[in-house]
Amino acid sequence: MVDRWISKRTEHFDSSGIRRVFDLAAKIENPINLSIGQPDFDVSDRTKEAAYRAIREGKNGYTLTQGIPPLKTKLQKKVDDEFNHDDRELFISSGTSGGLTVAMLSLIDPGDEVILFDPYFLVYPSIVRLAGGVPIIIDTHPDFRIDINDVQEAITDKTKAIIFNNPSNPTGVVATEEEVRGLANLAKEKGIVLISDEIYSDFCFDAPFVSPAKYNDQTIVVTGLSKSHAMTGWRVGFVHGPKALIDAMLRIQQYTFVCAPQPLQWAAVEGLDEDLTDHIHAYQKKRDLIYNGLSDLLEIARPCGAFYIYPKAPGGSGIAFVEKAIKNKILTIPGTIFSKHDSHFRISYAASNETLEQGIESLRKLIKS
Amino acid sequence: MVDRWISKRTEHFDSSGIRRVFDLAAKIENPINLSIGQPDFDVSDRTKEAAYRAIREGKNGYTLTQGIPPLKTKLQKKVDDEFNHDDRELFISSGTSGGLTVAMLSLIDPGDEVILFDPYFLVYPSIVRLAGGVPIIIDTHPDFRIDINDVQEAITDKTKAIIFNNPSNPTGVVATEEEVRGLANLAKEKGIVLISDEIYSDFCFDAPFVSPAKYNDQTIVVTGLSKSHAMTGWRVGFVHGPKALIDAMLRIQQYTFVCAPQPLQWAAVEGLDEDLTDHIHAYQKKRDLIYNGLSDLLEIARPCGAFYIYPKAPGGSGIAFVEKAIKNKILTIPGTIFSKHDSHFRISYAASNETLEQGIESLRKLIKS
Repeated sequence: MVDRWISKRTEHFDSSGIRRVFDLAAKIENPINLSIGQPDFDVSDRTKEAAYRAIREGKNGYTLTQGIPPLKTKLQKKVDDEFNHDDRELFISSGTSGGLTVAMLSLIDPGDEVILFDPYFLVYPSIVRLAGGVPIIIDTHPDFRIDINDVQEAITDKTKAIIFNNPSNPTGVVATEEEVRGLANLAKEKGIVLISDEIYSDFCFDAPFVSPAKYNDQTIVVTGLSKSHAMTGWRVGFVHGPKALIDAMLRIQQYTFVCAPQPLQWAAVEGLDEDLTDHIHAYQKKRDLIYNGLSDLLEIARPCGAFYIYPKAPGGSGIAFVEKAIKNKILTIPGTIFSKHDSHFRISYAASNETLEQGIESLRKLIKS
Repeated sequence: MVDRWISKRTEHFDSSGIRRVFDLAAKIENPINLSIGQPDFDVSDRTKEAAYRAIREGKNGYTLTQGIPPLKTKLQKKVDDEFNHDDRELFISSGTSGGLTVAMLSLIDPGDEVILFDPYFLVYPSIVRLAGGVPIIIDTHPDFRIDINDVQEAITDKTKAIIFNNPSNPTGVVATEEEVRGLANLAKEKGIVLISDEIYSDFCFDAPFVSPAKYNDQTIVVTGLSKSHAMTGWRVGFVHGPKALIDAMLRIQQYTFVCAPQPLQWAAVEGLDEDLTDHIHAYQKKRDLIYNGLSDLLEIARPCGAFYIYPKAPGGSGIAFVEKAIKNKILTIPGTIFSKHDSHFRISYAASNETLEQGIESLRKLIKS
């Protein structure tokens, strides 16, 4: 009876697809889990120590809406060194999803069109809808490359923003510098907000990461330490962009997210000084392991970043293959979570090498059977 | 130039009033700070230890959207013991503001009317607008009591919800059991969602706290440990209500807030076992100190809870008095932050007794001058 009270916008937040997979998966004992969206390593000891220290010292109350000054200052220097833009400011968000939510609410009016690339990170269409926006979806199958002509054609006088995720979750594909520059310039030329989700930028194996902010000083970058520092549950991210837009986002953040968790912000200050080379190198090897282990049997767009590969499903249906894999104790995610097409599935290699080797062996058997 | 990109809804998030006060206040050296919205004590050592333990053990990744099972189970038992409702479930939110935001987004459609009581907690009108709702404001000056006839008259066929904050920020007034029952029954009878913000319920000095959920099993309760356990910067709250509504809120939370910070959820499990008696007793004494210290010179509705008093401003204007007080190094908040009227100001007694005594002395001098 209380159902009548539920708002219409919740209809755009249907997670029943992924829940069905997780419900199936929950029944499997000792699964080979290749579905995880966070690193298999833990927060470093020095960053943990910084968190204990902050809590011990009583840094447990509200912070400024924009985050604690030492973290802001350190990140601002990093951003300034990289981009050298006059007007680029930042704030600490409650993770990347928190940053994206605040960005959407401060930028998108009802009816505004927002361009997304299919496959997309699963929350994008929903958070566009949350702000009353209309997702305009550009298909990038089968190579997951951005064709600038497709983007040009999708632009109307209602287009407000483009959300670009590079390296990509779920495909692991990294855009070329040419694609990035093309998109950045097109957005600038057309007066469209370019929102660049760079949460996987540290996981970029074969070429240096390039942000569209390099070519378009109005780009909004949403990123954080969650993946690189294994602190997905700490809810610390950050957003940088033109000052006026950051100010608008802070007005929304102040009354909704309030602030990112204080002691974990202090820990992030320490985290920024960490050398991530070993972790990234280990993930590059994991990428090689899984890609080389499966690419003779599966059609896979070469994954150069993040920690996912996105093969075409044997038999044609991602859902059917993922369900079959679950019965063989292998957990992956069907492409329908990220796409209008039921043709692919996502394998995460954020797992131990032992798990990856088991997974490769089991998947090879399953595909051949 | 990028200003044109800012969404219309940000207009409803104007914090310039409070920022002006804070900017003024920031220039004062060693102020007598009576403006703080969080306790002057710190998180307890045992709860801090539980946070260190969780971080050390690697509890740093995402949690389930609804929160970690041990915290959910413990809170559910508390809620069930108190209300014994068949259909009452809960989830862990990112603080009370996070819980309110998710509640608004999952319940309010554009055009829905939401009843608020003036003075209101400052975020209420903005988060109603965030969801496209229309705040309908009932004036409760000068005694800050809820007149059920006023509520009845304010209800139209567009009324979707009532937000009720008890004990009240900013007034410190606690509703009588009769007021609570009247509001609960009216909401139930009219088929309106009653959202009860109970974040200050532990700070209830003169009579036991009564939730409207006692009389109306469809009430949504938004609350948390932020104030009672001095962890405002930890972003851990919870929301309980009818299962279907909690499920709808989880759909929104999954793609926006994601989850409350994991290690701090584990610490909250420990926090729930703490005995708060000494803290509450100390705050009752602070209430007595400030109320007895000023009530002969100021018109103050008797404050029975939270940690605020809300006097009428000498001279008539809250803003003018607060600015005059700042020049005398006393920081308080003008009522215009919480009200359509510029007639009162808020004093927080979440401060050391020494600060309170200084504040009383300085305010007495100022009022008499």
